[in-house]
Amino acid sequence: MPLHDFQKYRLMAPGPVPLSQKVIEALRLPMIHHRTPEYEKIFQEALSGLKWMFQTRQPVMILSSTGTGGMEAALVNCLSPGDKVLVVVSGKFGERWKKIADIYGFETEVFESDWGARLDLEAFESALSKPGYKYKAVLTQVCETSTATLHPIRQMAALCRRHQAEALFMVDAISAIGCTPLPMDAWDLDVMVAGSQKAFALPTGLSFVALSERAWEANAEATSPRFYFDLKLERQSNEKGESHFSSSVILIRALNAVLHEFKAIGLENLAEDIGRRAEATRRGANELGLDIYSQCPSPSVTAVKVPSGVNGAKLRDHIEEKYNLTLMGGQDHLKGKILRFGHMGAISPEDILASLEALALALRDLGYADIKDPNIVTALETARRILA
Amino acid sequence: MPLHDFQKYRLMAPGPVPLSQKVIEALRLPMIHHRTPEYEKIFQEALSGLKWMFQTRQPVMILSSTGTGGMEAALVNCLSPGDKVLVVVSGKFGERWKKIADIYGFETEVFESDWGARLDLEAFESALSKPGYKYKAVLTQVCETSTATLHPIRQMAALCRRHQAEALFMVDAISAIGCTPLPMDAWDLDVMVAGSQKAFALPTGLSFVALSERAWEANAEATSPRFYFDLKLERQSNEKGESHFSSSVILIRALNAVLHEFKAIGLENLAEDIGRRAEATRRGANELGLDIYSQCPSPSVTAVKVPSGVNGAKLRDHIEEKYNLTLMGGQDHLKGKILRFGHMGAISPEDILASLEALALALRDLGYADIKDPNIVTALETARRILA
Repeated sequence: MPLHDFQKYRLMAPGPVPLSQKVIEALRLPMIHHRTPEYEKIFQEALSGLKWMFQTRQPVMILSSTGTGGMEAALVNCLSPGDKVLVVVSGKFGERWKKIADIYGFETEVFESDWGARLDLEAFESALSKPGYKYKAVLTQVCETSTATLHPIRQMAALCRRHQAEALFMVDAISAIGCTPLPMDAWDLDVMVAGSQKAFALPTGLSFVALSERAWEANAEATSPRFYFDLKLERQSNEKGESHFSSSVILIRALNAVLHEFKAIGLENLAEDIGRRAEATRRGANELGLDIYSQCPSPSVTAVKVPSGVNGAKLRDHIEEKYNLTLMGGQDHLKGKILRFGHMGAISPEDILASLEALALALRDLGYADIKDPNIVTALETARRILA
Repeated sequence: MPLHDFQKYRLMAPGPVPLSQKVIEALRLPMIHHRTPEYEKIFQEALSGLKWMFQTRQPVMILSSTGTGGMEAALVNCLSPGDKVLVVVSGKFGERWKKIADIYGFETEVFESDWGARLDLEAFESALSKPGYKYKAVLTQVCETSTATLHPIRQMAALCRRHQAEALFMVDAISAIGCTPLPMDAWDLDVMVAGSQKAFALPTGLSFVALSERAWEANAEATSPRFYFDLKLERQSNEKGESHFSSSVILIRALNAVLHEFKAIGLENLAEDIGRRAEATRRGANELGLDIYSQCPSPSVTAVKVPSGVNGAKLRDHIEEKYNLTLMGGQDHLKGKILRFGHMGAISPEDILASLEALALALRDLGYADIKDPNIVTALETARRILA
């Protein structure tokens, strides 16, 4: 007899995430036009709230796109064909940085960090200080979602500044902002990209991009073609109070509802809360006798190793079908090897406990005999204590 | 004493447009993940519904962007730097085609058609048959929203085929599809672009693009850089049942609600209904003694000339403030000269009558004395008869 109600559907992926009631209420407000004084106020409130989230004095631009569009915007607005860039590749999203950079004709050098490994700062420093290598930009993820690994961004940014004084340090913060400290100005980050369907807990459809002064200077000289993603056009329109192209009225209103809530909670508490969800999941999984995939686990998503002998794809499908719970599997060589639990969005402590129980029961359903009833009880108790 | 209730807010712009109750209900459904079997079915239903809307056997790709992103996608997927293109420029959106084409390094030739004028097919034919000019593409709007003018697309497409057999005839159908006959395959259109916030009556955030076989052949050779807007990647993922990047779950579900309703109405009836709204607005305005700006008015939006001596910007603001009604003004040299009434979306006959009354009363409020009470009565009666 399960301890949790598995009639209830639970979305526990690392984005999209469950929406709060306030967001849902905002989504159903009557449509208004984006070229009206009423909307201008709403839009300006969103822009100013994003600066608070990004912890920057620079403008944050909103694009109607997924996070990938924001990544592309970051690159084409700051770089020109032939520019040398160093790309940190430690999973699928690092590969994505590289793909876009290659397509736009930048000369890419890869700093490879093993999937799930703790990023080796000494090796990173060597790559940055290799004689004769002068980079226009260094690209990295803050959290590599595909492996649920957090990178030491503060130290990486400082190393970049020390050895590549003129390089733009560009971070994909899509699944990190709101989940971990990431003060853009204080840490001297040059470009930061975020997306709506992660810690912002909104539907997919918006990306957010901010540029440092150094990056704006690069922007003035960057020759990569851009129109829809032209951040300068967007910034100029923002200064007049409006978006450059049609604005996503429903998502921006919902964004304000979220930012309002986040301000009441405080950025630090927000990140701590998400971090506790991650810790509860990790410790709970350990109590079930399962290992965590990443050496340096992210607060926003946890990758639990599928025990050997168990078919991970089957496990995920079984959890979806029998326990009404959506988790994500692994990609490429991690296919079937990990299960990823998202910790962002309107998730309750109960949901986290239910996800641990579902994992345990599903493993047993599939014939994995190593989890006993007391393991489950301990796992849930451990997690509950952390979440309390 | 006004005949209509102006406490009620009315959005009558040419996009975004008021949402139906069914769309609003779809927007507030619980979030699900875009990589689940449940969502795959939803997504496939949307793709197949779009083919029906586009009247094509070709796949229609969905992008998370505004319509402008769809225009950019059309160009970068089919053309290479240096390609010669002929751009029909008859307003702001023709200028947008040209801007994007210039940025991506195409060699643009402009076919200028006076703003609001009926497109001169003979002159267009001359432009297409100019000796020594061989185009890779011809770009046009179906409806130029900035001037509320409809272009004779069927004839233009035929002329393009006759004189520029290999050119891709690319149409921005953003404010036209659903409002006027536009069978992509039957009219041999090569690229068609649409957007969610027009006749689809959805929030801003999706664009839809379809390519003919000829355009897919061009795609295989086109060297313009593209990643976020790469239609081939998107198509390949669609064939596996999913979107290439994160999918906008809430908008796609709402799209299915709309397509379901449209199928019940029928494409022809849908366009006729919108056409009637336009005719009622035009005839009503005429009865008020006002002129229609365009010689070839669009069914989706009507531009009413602001009578001389009246400040058009003030008129628009006054209608917004006192009559709670959002209309759009003119842009550039049409600033203050026209008022644009949108006819798409969840608009009732009552709304159209109210907009005519608001226009009449606002003009009188601003001191324009030519509209008498009987004019208003006749205008509303005329419009009501057309809408009945």
